[in-house]
Amino acid sequence: MINWKNLNELSSFSKLNSLGAAVDITTALAGENGAKRVRNCTVPMACGLSYNYAAKAVDDTVLDALQALADEAQLTEKFEALYNGEVINTGEKRLVLHQLTRGQLGNDVVAEGVNKRSFYLEQQKKIADFAAKVHSGAVANAAGEKFTTVVQIGIGGSDLGPRAMYLALENWAKTNGCFRMEARFISNVDPDDAAAVIASVDLAHSLFILVSKSGTTLETLTNESFVKNALTKAGLDASKHMIAVTSETSPLAKSSDYLAAFFMDDYIGGRFSSTSSVGGAVLSLAFGPDIFERFLNGAAAEDKKAVEKDIRKNPAMLDALIGVYERNVLGFDATAVLPYSQALSHFPAHLQQADMESNGKSVNRFGDPVSYKTGPIIFGEPGTNGQHSFYQLLHQGTDIIPLQFIGFVDSQIGSDVDIQGSTSQKKLCANVAAQIVAFACGKKDENLNKNFKGGRPSSIIIGKQLTPESLGALLSHFENKIMFQGFAWNVNSFDQEGVQLGKVLAKKVLAHETDGALKEFSDLFEI
Amino acid sequence: MINWKNLNELSSFSKLNSLGAAVDITTALAGENGAKRVRNCTVPMACGLSYNYAAKAVDDTVLDALQALADEAQLTEKFEALYNGEVINTGEKRLVLHQLTRGQLGNDVVAEGVNKRSFYLEQQKKIADFAAKVHSGAVANAAGEKFTTVVQIGIGGSDLGPRAMYLALENWAKTNGCFRMEARFISNVDPDDAAAVIASVDLAHSLFILVSKSGTTLETLTNESFVKNALTKAGLDASKHMIAVTSETSPLAKSSDYLAAFFMDDYIGGRFSSTSSVGGAVLSLAFGPDIFERFLNGAAAEDKKAVEKDIRKNPAMLDALIGVYERNVLGFDATAVLPYSQALSHFPAHLQQADMESNGKSVNRFGDPVSYKTGPIIFGEPGTNGQHSFYQLLHQGTDIIPLQFIGFVDSQIGSDVDIQGSTSQKKLCANVAAQIVAFACGKKDENLNKNFKGGRPSSIIIGKQLTPESLGALLSHFENKIMFQGFAWNVNSFDQEGVQLGKVLAKKVLAHETDGALKEFSDLFEI
Repeated sequence: MINWKNLNELSSFSKLNSLGAAVDITTALAGENGAKRVRNCTVPMACGLSYNYAAKAVDDTVLDALQALADEAQLTEKFEALYNGEVINTGEKRLVLHQLTRGQLGNDVVAEGVNKRSFYLEQQKKIADFAAKVHSGAVANAAGEKFTTVVQIGIGGSDLGPRAMYLALENWAKTNGCFRMEARFISNVDPDDAAAVIASVDLAHSLFILVSKSGTTLETLTNESFVKNALTKAGLDASKHMIAVTSETSPLAKSSDYLAAFFMDDYIGGRFSSTSSVGGAVLSLAFGPDIFERFLNGAAAEDKKAVEKDIRKNPAMLDALIGVYERNVLGFDATAVLPYSQALSHFPAHLQQADMESNGKSVNRFGDPVSYKTGPIIFGEPGTNGQHSFYQLLHQGTDIIPLQFIGFVDSQIGSDVDIQGSTSQKKLCANVAAQIVAFACGKKDENLNKNFKGGRPSSIIIGKQLTPESLGALLSHFENKIMFQGFAWNVNSFDQEGVQLGKVLAKKVLAHETDGALKEFSDLFEI
Repeated sequence: MINWKNLNELSSFSKLNSLGAAVDITTALAGENGAKRVRNCTVPMACGLSYNYAAKAVDDTVLDALQALADEAQLTEKFEALYNGEVINTGEKRLVLHQLTRGQLGNDVVAEGVNKRSFYLEQQKKIADFAAKVHSGAVANAAGEKFTTVVQIGIGGSDLGPRAMYLALENWAKTNGCFRMEARFISNVDPDDAAAVIASVDLAHSLFILVSKSGTTLETLTNESFVKNALTKAGLDASKHMIAVTSETSPLAKSSDYLAAFFMDDYIGGRFSSTSSVGGAVLSLAFGPDIFERFLNGAAAEDKKAVEKDIRKNPAMLDALIGVYERNVLGFDATAVLPYSQALSHFPAHLQQADMESNGKSVNRFGDPVSYKTGPIIFGEPGTNGQHSFYQLLHQGTDIIPLQFIGFVDSQIGSDVDIQGSTSQKKLCANVAAQIVAFACGKKDENLNKNFKGGRPSSIIIGKQLTPESLGALLSHFENKIMFQGFAWNVNSFDQEGVQLGKVLAKKVLAHETDGALKEFSDLFEI
């Protein structure tokens, strides 16, 4: 029997709260004990990744309290209910099945008479077959020439995740001989976005993927028209250059406007759709279906880690609960995501959506206000770039901001130079190692302008290399972290009612049905 | 006589503090009074821009208190001291002269016997002459063919600002027939960054700009070697494909490794260097020196607005002080920058550095700890993309995050489609107008999951179009806002000691001079 209780109703949270700021990281990381701590505070993940929390302000007392919280909040049981097909998205009365797109953790899930795992596999296979035809030239343009470029038209979850995953694997795929098609992305309703992308591609050899679950997203339909106009102007048959990824019930599903349609359903939230057809179409076309499958396998392997009850063996749950401790006991309001990997340049923007749209809520899953802080601000840039940007504030600013580092031993391309006795890759790794210690331990200086207080907590996920598998595992880790935090805060992480009001008012503006301040602002824009 | 006092030592701040949260924006923006408020709360900027603060929680009482704060903190006098060449950067004992790169607001500034305005103009002219030669083919590759691509190698301020400015004008320049060369950027020490950029350009027709004030930035020198190796491997003479932007005293200044060298000096901070040679070289090569000059003119025109004592007529100072009120009285910890313009896709990342590196400090300009919050977290993405990402948290999360919107009546490219009775550009503008009102006024709903509390403050900068001039004005606005906030917080906004410790520890890692936790983390990365 699952109890959905607010965080502050849990006795384990009162216990945790009473511990306060129990651990001084600076002391904990000092000397030989510090070295031991780094060795001990490692949790193995899938695909050769590991999660290290040595620089987090936790000790066994705090971890025991977090374990008690995990148990009392029934995090494992709630995850189990989710993957077994209960209605976890209470706001929209929907199942939450994104894990099922990459593996099956529990019972068969049947909805509307359909086995959902079979359905997702079937879509994956349909995409694989279609991609193979595009790659072979069996599906080609009117002149019988192969398509060379794929352009995804989508916004939010239909853009950020797939774009981040594409960029994460683009150079790996080029280096490993599995790069098939260049991918581009059109998202913004700003006409300059579509115009610039269209101007930069060879339309006659471009295949467009229209991605909209409902088939009604304003930005996406507008950009579709933009693209169709351009194709028509170029003397091309738009319907021979476009496929759709949508739900079976959408107006796009059976339209003759598309070469093919691939399906997702209401049980896959946009921000969790990278492993569904939404990511599958573009990634399978760009890199080949086998690479997409390897990415799914990585995610599935990491999902399995998330079923573990012991937080010390469940990196996503541990990461989630340390985050709750930092947010609700230590009072930190943001988390910086800092991948030391240029390939992950768009990963922070994807996590920003995945996390902030899921847990930026003020009511619990029953619609009652909560009295505690929920989802933090998520922001970040790749290192070492960030070091030359906002790290000043992270080191010496008046707020403490917990840090989530990501790093890899090897680069993707492998091309490197040796300068002053080390390669660029070693320099990159040396920097992330140095930053963890600099943030945690600081350094005393009589000149307070050069003084570093330390005590700034971080964790790091380390891997051998960013590959399709490890990228999948990384994505799964954060998706599951977000889910566990949502469970702990007792919010519904799977709806997004906060995006509606703006849409409603924008329609009023366009219909000229405004008065007062809204009319004045519209006038400023000459609408 | 200027007094440098901490914020909490000012009687005007005590007064401001006592006002607390004085204004309910929801009420203030309602009905006909709301319409009047939108009309009244507008401050003209240069180049057709205007700053509107109707949706900020301020009224005449708060504004009067902010004016008193501006006066007591001597913001105008401090700016005057700055542009007249006093040592404002006390930490590094340096003048702060970035405004002088685009105009002269006060007296002649002479340092080391050199009139600095003349020096900056001379560099601008040298770059213009060089760019003209590159464009005419007088400076060409070994085969006598024109260079087509320019690649900037730099990090932090030598990357973020110039990159954001280039992207902001790229499509405008293409549309207006002044696009000369494509620009690319290499910044990260991650070898995959340089390798990917090099693989994507035609080396024989590429001109590289090495940008490092000191000539010692590790990332930049490493990437220079990376590029030189690639040029040499391609059978090209690297010294004929590379120019330098550096200080006259740097080892790069008179090296035969470069076709030419252009200078900046210690009085231009990296994050404020877009209007110096650092931005000048790449922007003049990409778009022509006349376009770079128009950009400077826009910045100069906006700088003039910043000398005004009346905050109601000085948009940068007003924006700065509303920010101080929000940070130190209302307790908001972050600001989201939300440009409704795809061309400004990298502008938030640039402001993130400019702001967080400048004001993320815990000690005042004398090195004494301050007892109040200083620089907030800055993050953002272009709209409407952000609406489908993190706006959920902005609307319904448990923290209030002030918003800085930017929007333009017209797009840059001008290509558009009319769908459902409106163009994409009108939809874009309708969305930003709608969001301001949605955030401020909210909307009651019995279902609290669909309820919007409102009371979320924002301001907006509106312009006719993003052009070289309005981009310059926009940049100046934020640079001056940051400066005024630094003055109000009594911090030195022009040094960045917080970036040093990480560098020192990274060197130790690479020299294998580590023990304890640092050694363990290094081992995890196989260093």
